[in-house]
Amino acid sequence: MKHVLIVGGGFVGLNAAKILGKSGKVRVTLIDRRNYHLFQPLLYQVAMAGLSPAEIAAPLRSLLSGYPHVRVLQAEALSVDAGAGKVETSIGSISYDYLVLGCGAQHAYFGNEEWEPLAPGLKTIEQATEIRRRILYAFEKAESTDNVEEKMKQLTFVVVGGGTTGVELSGAIGEMSRYTFSKDFKNIDPKLTRVILVEAGERILPAYHPDLSARATRDLESLGVQVWTSKRVEAVDSDGVTIGKERIQAATVIWAAGIQASEINRSLGQETDWLGRVTVRQDLSIEGHPEIFVGGDQAAFIPEGASEALSGVAPVALHQGRHIARNILCDIAEKPRRDFKYFDKGQMATIGRSRAVVEAGKIRFSGFFAWITWLFIHIYFLTGFKNRLFVVLQWAGAYFTFNRGARLIVNKEWQFYKPRKKEPFPKDDAGEQKKNF
Amino acid sequence: MKHVLIVGGGFVGLNAAKILGKSGKVRVTLIDRRNYHLFQPLLYQVAMAGLSPAEIAAPLRSLLSGYPHVRVLQAEALSVDAGAGKVETSIGSISYDYLVLGCGAQHAYFGNEEWEPLAPGLKTIEQATEIRRRILYAFEKAESTDNVEEKMKQLTFVVVGGGTTGVELSGAIGEMSRYTFSKDFKNIDPKLTRVILVEAGERILPAYHPDLSARATRDLESLGVQVWTSKRVEAVDSDGVTIGKERIQAATVIWAAGIQASEINRSLGQETDWLGRVTVRQDLSIEGHPEIFVGGDQAAFIPEGASEALSGVAPVALHQGRHIARNILCDIAEKPRRDFKYFDKGQMATIGRSRAVVEAGKIRFSGFFAWITWLFIHIYFLTGFKNRLFVVLQWAGAYFTFNRGARLIVNKEWQFYKPRKKEPFPKDDAGEQKKNF
Repeated sequence: MKHVLIVGGGFVGLNAAKILGKSGKVRVTLIDRRNYHLFQPLLYQVAMAGLSPAEIAAPLRSLLSGYPHVRVLQAEALSVDAGAGKVETSIGSISYDYLVLGCGAQHAYFGNEEWEPLAPGLKTIEQATEIRRRILYAFEKAESTDNVEEKMKQLTFVVVGGGTTGVELSGAIGEMSRYTFSKDFKNIDPKLTRVILVEAGERILPAYHPDLSARATRDLESLGVQVWTSKRVEAVDSDGVTIGKERIQAATVIWAAGIQASEINRSLGQETDWLGRVTVRQDLSIEGHPEIFVGGDQAAFIPEGASEALSGVAPVALHQGRHIARNILCDIAEKPRRDFKYFDKGQMATIGRSRAVVEAGKIRFSGFFAWITWLFIHIYFLTGFKNRLFVVLQWAGAYFTFNRGARLIVNKEWQFYKPRKKEPFPKDDAGEQKKNF
Repeated sequence: MKHVLIVGGGFVGLNAAKILGKSGKVRVTLIDRRNYHLFQPLLYQVAMAGLSPAEIAAPLRSLLSGYPHVRVLQAEALSVDAGAGKVETSIGSISYDYLVLGCGAQHAYFGNEEWEPLAPGLKTIEQATEIRRRILYAFEKAESTDNVEEKMKQLTFVVVGGGTTGVELSGAIGEMSRYTFSKDFKNIDPKLTRVILVEAGERILPAYHPDLSARATRDLESLGVQVWTSKRVEAVDSDGVTIGKERIQAATVIWAAGIQASEINRSLGQETDWLGRVTVRQDLSIEGHPEIFVGGDQAAFIPEGASEALSGVAPVALHQGRHIARNILCDIAEKPRRDFKYFDKGQMATIGRSRAVVEAGKIRFSGFFAWITWLFIHIYFLTGFKNRLFVVLQWAGAYFTFNRGARLIVNKEWQFYKPRKKEPFPKDDAGEQKKNF
């Protein structure tokens, strides 16, 4: 049996593994740094205290436990040795007959990596809980101070980047401060919160029709978000940001401005584009290596006749994963491979509690109906029935009460003794006390 | 209006704040290091991947938002200056007319604090997710290795301390490895997991009737847990533990062997007992300071005629919090204070999915009915209706499928660039790329 190695348990890898596992015609190993599949489109809800991490993530091992030929390992892929047909990983080298890469991307600062501790991005659960911690903590600090300048700084939130993530984050912060927190904080008026969405381009949601950009801008403004377009962030420090020539004192800055494809692309010996993505052929394999397939955010797939690569959004990645699996099965059955055709399912972004913008081909709509559409599609594609049920309940609860359930400020440090440098417990007493263990 | 300062948002502080807030007769400030109230009795479920942190914790601010005279601040209390009537905190000094202390306890190693990184305790959400991470990661490592010794080490779990927490933890690990993981791991037989519960005393659950200890031991053994009594842990290192004279190779060690009352007691100038608890009088105030009340794990309350202090379990803490509030209101109304009388509501511990032991006075029972009792009481007292609903659903799902929803290995580090020491992105390209922000 041929061995297919899948790197990454995102939309590409998980869907490829399911099709290959169902066929029973190949042996599959799926490796991922994490032990779970993450439903990225709802990650901003974790950052916004609307959902718990476990509601948008499911263990890869259980998702794939029904397929006897699929093995799941938690390991990090370090580099691909395409000549030798093997991948170096944190648990040793793994050889393959076919390789499927879906390692995704991480947020990128394009030469300003030192901004990361000051302005976290939103790609992982750890980052989402860090952003949640910062936002909630800023409100707590604003509540406990009487210094007006400090209070204003704590209540100023800057979101950098006007794509889908930036729009969804800033809308949620605006709504949270206006409604969720309005009765909880007694020493501040949470409505005084200032949320600034900064976009270097001429309009937010540049991938959408200008009408929808305008509508999203109006919707954000109605939630108290200031939308600054054609403005560039020049500097970030611990007290705030410099936008163009203007200095903004802000305790919380969130980075949603750029992504960079997985570093593993560097070891493929192929050309990469400005986002670090490797170009794939029409069958999704790479030049010179028909046994290596790449999909999702890690790949630049330019449809025939088009000038630009498809963006690696969830539906594209999902279909690429399935298509890669089917092309491998074509090889096994000695049939010709097929080219990847993507029927554009459209794109959507939600703004606050009951508004969204939806665009699919020539169809465009916004407002409450768009939000319902957004809701159903996201719940439909969410992995795992139980998760779906829980997310529906969370949202129903949040919709009617404006409350957000997951408002916990959780620290990174779990140890009690080390950070506090407590005096050691007197050894003499210890003997007696041990009796009671 | 008199000012009541409450330190700690646990069962004591939250319940005192509610009664005082409802009366409208005093001004209340509640401070806590955390922004949430944690339902401690279910914390082991977070460590065992059965529940998400947000399902057993609720923001203090929203729990108390209905009381106009109650203010909530996130701050750490550092010391009490009883003479001056003020408390030093991380956000400055706060003076009071009445002080209510319910700072609880943390796990203690009694002179072996260096064991903490090797054997985490279970008192906070951070510790619970750390334990969850270690257990899940051990199974992942066992799956990816072919070295038999290493596999056995990864699959050996040692729980130190045979009280309620230790029994509940070891039972859950036993069950999880036998049922939840049995089909998920293909390269290991999770039934080979070795779980050892170590207790220095003669029997586990020493606070219960010997019959129930025996029953709990049998129930644990049926889940594959080895119960070692009259055994003391002599050493802990990164490869395992020494129990008595026996060396056990174990990747995961959990500490449930002892607690120590909050350090703030040291600043009260009172005598403390061997658990660091301060002795309180029958009205729950401390000697010489009728305006200072202490409750829960931080206090040693010896009922009249009894020889031992009540243990600071949740129902005791809850009633003490309410009683303290009522005594303060007695003072305000110029009525005499009342002594605290505790009607023993009993105690219970659950073992795995459908067994428990319950003891209330002379009533003792165990098995499935005890488990149902345990379930209803815990859900009834869980804070917040939505949380209750979610926990019921999680348990219903887990009961029928043996699945555990929150099996995420979440790391502490959220930054991508710093830990990896990536080469900086070439500055020349950066200019061009920024266009696309």
